[in-house]
Amino acid sequence: MEWKTKITKVEPNHLVTKGYRQEDLIGNVPYSHVVYLLLKDKLPSKEHGKMIDAILTACIDHGVTPPTAMASRVVASGGVPLPTAVAAGVLSIGDAHGGAIEKGAKFLQEGIARMKQDGKSIDEMAKILVSESREQKKRILGFGHRVHTADPRTKRLFSLADELKITGKHMNLSKAIEKELGEQTGKNLPINVDGAIAAISSDMGFDWRLGKAFFLLGRVAGLTAHVYEEQTQEKPMRKIFSVDCDYDGPNERDLP
Amino acid sequence: MEWKTKITKVEPNHLVTKGYRQEDLIGNVPYSHVVYLLLKDKLPSKEHGKMIDAILTACIDHGVTPPTAMASRVVASGGVPLPTAVAAGVLSIGDAHGGAIEKGAKFLQEGIARMKQDGKSIDEMAKILVSESREQKKRILGFGHRVHTADPRTKRLFSLADELKITGKHMNLSKAIEKELGEQTGKNLPINVDGAIAAISSDMGFDWRLGKAFFLLGRVAGLTAHVYEEQTQEKPMRKIFSVDCDYDGPNERDLP
Amino acid sequence: MEWKTKITKVEPNHLVTKGYRQEDLIGNVPYSHVVYLLLKDKLPSKEHGKMIDAILTACIDHGVTPPTAMASRVVASGGVPLPTAVAAGVLSIGDAHGGAIEKGAKFLQEGIARMKQDGKSIDEMAKILVSESREQKKRILGFGHRVHTADPRTKRLFSLADELKITGKHMNLSKAIEKELGEQTGKNLPINVDGAIAAISSDMGFDWRLGKAFFLLGRVAGLTAHVYEEQTQEKPMRKIFSVDCDYDGPNERDLP
Amino acid sequence: MEWKTKITKVEPNHLVTKGYRQEDLIGNVPYSHVVYLLLKDKLPSKEHGKMIDAILTACIDHGVTPPTAMASRVVASGGVPLPTAVAAGVLSIGDAHGGAIEKGAKFLQEGIARMKQDGKSIDEMAKILVSESREQKKRILGFGHRVHTADPRTKRLFSLADELKITGKHMNLSKAIEKELGEQTGKNLPINVDGAIAAISSDMGFDWRLGKAFFLLGRVAGLTAHVYEEQTQEKPMRKIFSVDCDYDGPNERDLP
Repeated sequence: MEWKTKITKVEPNHLVTKGYRQEDLIGNVPYSHVVYLLLKDKLPSKEHGKMIDAILTACIDHGVTPPTAMASRVVASGGVPLPTAVAAGVLSIGDAHGGAIEKGAKFLQEGIARMKQDGKSIDEMAKILVSESREQKKRILGFGHRVHTADPRTKRLFSLADELKITGKHMNLSKAIEKELGEQTGKNLPINVDGAIAAISSDMGFDWRLGKAFFLLGRVAGLTAHVYEEQTQEKPMRKIFSVDCDYDGPNERDLP
Repeated sequence: MEWKTKITKVEPNHLVTKGYRQEDLIGNVPYSHVVYLLLKDKLPSKEHGKMIDAILTACIDHGVTPPTAMASRVVASGGVPLPTAVAAGVLSIGDAHGGAIEKGAKFLQEGIARMKQDGKSIDEMAKILVSESREQKKRILGFGHRVHTADPRTKRLFSLADELKITGKHMNLSKAIEKELGEQTGKNLPINVDGAIAAISSDMGFDWRLGKAFFLLGRVAGLTAHVYEEQTQEKPMRKIFSVDCDYDGPNERDLP
Repeated sequence: MEWKTKITKVEPNHLVTKGYRQEDLIGNVPYSHVVYLLLKDKLPSKEHGKMIDAILTACIDHGVTPPTAMASRVVASGGVPLPTAVAAGVLSIGDAHGGAIEKGAKFLQEGIARMKQDGKSIDEMAKILVSESREQKKRILGFGHRVHTADPRTKRLFSLADELKITGKHMNLSKAIEKELGEQTGKNLPINVDGAIAAISSDMGFDWRLGKAFFLLGRVAGLTAHVYEEQTQEKPMRKIFSVDCDYDGPNERDLP
Repeated sequence: MEWKTKITKVEPNHLVTKGYRQEDLIGNVPYSHVVYLLLKDKLPSKEHGKMIDAILTACIDHGVTPPTAMASRVVASGGVPLPTAVAAGVLSIGDAHGGAIEKGAKFLQEGIARMKQDGKSIDEMAKILVSESREQKKRILGFGHRVHTADPRTKRLFSLADELKITGKHMNLSKAIEKELGEQTGKNLPINVDGAIAAISSDMGFDWRLGKAFFLLGRVAGLTAHVYEEQTQEKPMRKIFSVDCDYDGPNERDLP
């Protein structure tokens, strides 16, 4: 029943996280680099440090309508402590919200592995993957956005990844898929911010299982701001939204 | 039914958070400074930027035993998605866990307001506050720790606050209370990490209602690492801990 | 480090809850009576059994707009497991949503204690309590509803409590407060469903600290139905509501 | 953007759930039957009513060690409201904890569909399913328990299902699988309580997607009792368990 952790050693007056004394990390290593350390067991290079920081900032907030923000605001309106309301927003991060990072990264990482195994080029692999997904009527995640056609976050992440020389085979496969999708479907389905983070984090060597973590770790800042704003600027149990929902259940009836 | 938000303006291909375009923030302003922006409506000075970053790092992790980490690991062991398990840890941030930052900051902020109103010195105010709390048998929060007598995080935060010239009246009141507590109780009850963050964030001008937010925003990094470690290194539903709990309810009986 | 529990004794092939073997409870004691057993350490009388069952049913659902239902539906739309989405709704049960049961019961239980101590009649006590709350500009919780003027649940709970001879001093104090509120404010503020449960559960001898528990234990049924409906009838990340929210934060600006 | 709900119609002074006025349901229809109504759109027969009630009671509690109870107690110890702590326990209901009901019911429902399509007998189908799962090295869920060899809840549910004439093809397939597992593996892997609920709820016509719902709706009673006990009998932030966890991360080192 013994178990091991690689995260933190706790002794009286002594805290060591992933090998580094916490007093050495505090104020010397930027918080976003400490996040990297926690998830990758080593401090980032200068380039990776700048990139992980940019990824977190790219996830901070998208206004009041996404499930994350709305869940946090609605729960806050019930009159609960700040962490309870922030956690409610975190709960909504799922396969359909933020989940494209995880699934997209898995798709790219498996695509690259298969490409190597089968001796294909990136363009060949993209063609195969897009064709297969169309045959199986499965959407490839990380392309297209319900609000933005040219997401400003995506463009910035791309140019940073290039500048920092992080762009690698996962990003190139992602761009080849974008092109192939356009050709095969005739639609413009640009890589979205989830898809960009999926590709870049894969090129940085992160496990796709951490896909939702990047979104969560950035978004929690915006959620905290939403809950604080709700708690200090609005009345409890206020009407937050209007709903156009009709009852179409069984007709009113007497008990048998 | 109209309402307002000061957080993010969302338009197609255009995202503005607290006045700044997100593409300008990404990769140009450190993530921890963006957190400050979200909570304070302006970018930090160089000194405040370094301090908020240090505060977040000071909260990242304290091993597997605090309610935050244990709740996240236990929930992860049920076989749920990463965000669900991280959120469970966030839920445990309450009056008894991380709550000393909020309550401590409120106590200090009200103490300073009262000091000004009553024309007292910091030492006089500390004496009054400690005497009152002893009469009312109320603990002053932010002093003493169940593991550390000289918490390495606290020492580092103090020296940074001095170095960055952030130390001000709230920290001074806190130190005067620590001294007074020692004199009145005969016990050594040093300012703990929660108390340090309470004092420093107050000197930075933060609302005490954000007390739990700093802890949450830092700790979420450690919780993510715990959940990832549990999901990738351990078996679902494993025995995580041993419990020494006896049943002392009603004796076994037949239904009436 | 030893601790005790009065809830369940677990031995191989043997489970005893509050003194009763689980195999005896299953199918012999109605589930709602088992809830009573868990919270009160004994099985209910016939009358109390019928009343606790009615209280749970009175809390099941109030459509899609309360924070509970909306939080569950919004979180479900993120594409998460059913329990995660149900839990999100439970999180919104707070001081402003369902909280009137807890606070109302506390108010009534303290009112009755004070009435006895001060040798007052119920009408005298009601007058004192309403006057005090008006002087302190504090709302007495459990009166008035934002949708219903004659809540059908409340009327049914009242007549059941009378019929089952559960109506006692807490309910009488509640009715005296309702009358006094009308006289002192000139407004019609009828006891609402929260107030009814506060009074009845107090007359049944329940601790006010369980106030939110009744609401939670009933509402979880409706929340499960909402999440199941969302997951099986709607698309992930659909637009659930419309929001009329304007950005009034800092004007768009360049980084300094 | 219009949507529909079959759950509750809300009008001033008028609440209709699945066709029935709430005032008619309250105190006339047992709460557990109302749960059935919410999940199945109709009131249960006498037999189904008794069975759904028994299923909920079979899930109430299994002491302090399962992830549900431990998550709720640990989170409660952080000093948070009762619903927040109960919700934390609900979050741990996942593929590895309570999830066998969902997966087991899906397996049985698909097995019966395939049996009909392929014109097999129940025994033939069981043989095929066990052989396939052994070839694919996949565990069939709902068999074996880490504490009980003859779970008292399971036996009681079986005899009730027989008595109420609910036992049908899903339960028979389940029993045939149990027998076949014994023969093919030489191990005694009796249907456990999750497996029993999977089979019985399938014979009652419930969608396997509701598998986790039964467990959740019953367990929430025990979780409420655990949180209440923790909040009223124990000190905040107490040491709840002992952990035997070693740090085996990177050796202590200086920052580069």
